[in-house]
Amino acid sequence: MTQEDKTRITVDIHNKSYTIVGTEPAHHVRLVASLVDQKMHEIQEMNKNLDTTKLAVLTAVNSMNDYLKLKEEYAKLLGSINKKEDK
Amino acid sequence: MTQEDKTRITVDIHNKSYTIVGTEPAHHVRLVASLVDQKMHEIQEMNKNLDTTKLAVLTAVNSMNDYLKLKEEYAKLLGSINKKEDK
Repeated sequence: MTQEDKTRITVDIHNKSYTIVGTEPAHHVRLVASLVDQKMHEIQEMNKNLDTTKLAVLTAVNSMNDYLKLKEEYAKLLGSINKKEDK
Repeated sequence: MTQEDKTRITVDIHNKSYTIVGTEPAHHVRLVASLVDQKMHEIQEMNKNLDTTKLAVLTAVNSMNDYLKLKEEYAKLLGSINKKEDK
């Protein structure tokens, strides 16, 4: 992959601009950014006194938790397929 | 679920302490925190000039991206199972 294949997309998250450099399509980057923005907003609603850094770290923790749980579900699903195919 | 069922676990992420309140087992919360800490470290290695807030937001973006991609994979896998069962 060359430097030219990379896209630069500017998104707003929690009232700040971020330029995301990568190979993902713009609509995907915007979707990710809007979900992060939404999650930050939700966490802030529950903990009004958090500064932006803590809010962002807790948002990352929350997303990572979702990711790990889904990974377990994925592994289970894959396991059940393999079991069926063995029969 | 009552208040008593909730656990309070203190973890260190990027040299700050966070108390995570929830219903997850301690080892799961510690794993999630260590993965976020590791991801923040990796992103910082690639962008040495980021302040902690931006670093944390980009870590959240990164984790959310991983989550969405896995969600797509999960949906594909589920789709392929349903297809097989329809046959």
